[in-house]
Amino acid sequence: MSHPDLLGYAAAFLTTASFVPQVWQTLRTRDTRALSLWMYLLFTVGVALWGVYGILLGAWPIILANGVTLLLATIVLWHKLTEPRES
Amino acid sequence: MSHPDLLGYAAAFLTTASFVPQVWQTLRTRDTRALSLWMYLLFTVGVALWGVYGILLGAWPIILANGVTLLLATIVLWHKLTEPRES
Repeated sequence: MSHPDLLGYAAAFLTTASFVPQVWQTLRTRDTRALSLWMYLLFTVGVALWGVYGILLGAWPIILANGVTLLLATIVLWHKLTEPRES
Repeated sequence: MSHPDLLGYAAAFLTTASFVPQVWQTLRTRDTRALSLWMYLLFTVGVALWGVYGILLGAWPIILANGVTLLLATIVLWHKLTEPRES
């Protein structure tokens, strides 16, 4: 594995793993008020496109990172879309 | 510009632009309660590493996207770190 690949995997791990505490907090608190709906809409579509970009380049750090991030961001987006008024 | 580059720029634009409404909402409301501190800590470091990865690969969509995302994510992180108790 080349050095850029190693760095790519480290970057991929961090940006992907970063959504785990957000998903956890959102599932636990059901509080999505401070989360921007537009951020999660644009971000989810963008991450899907990054995945396709990675496939075209054959760049596995990009493919893996964005596949998992897509799943995690979709969970947050789903909760934002279905947020209760005030609980 | 090749097709993968075009797709990369589209992906870069979306994932980067997605943080603009989040920054806007955070600046406007000062409400960061639903935002995960750990998400923004890990994400900011990860985005910085993606930038270096892009530099090593000479992949401009990755460099540009992550440079701007780093700036935007840092603004949100800063507000999270300095969030008032309850206003």
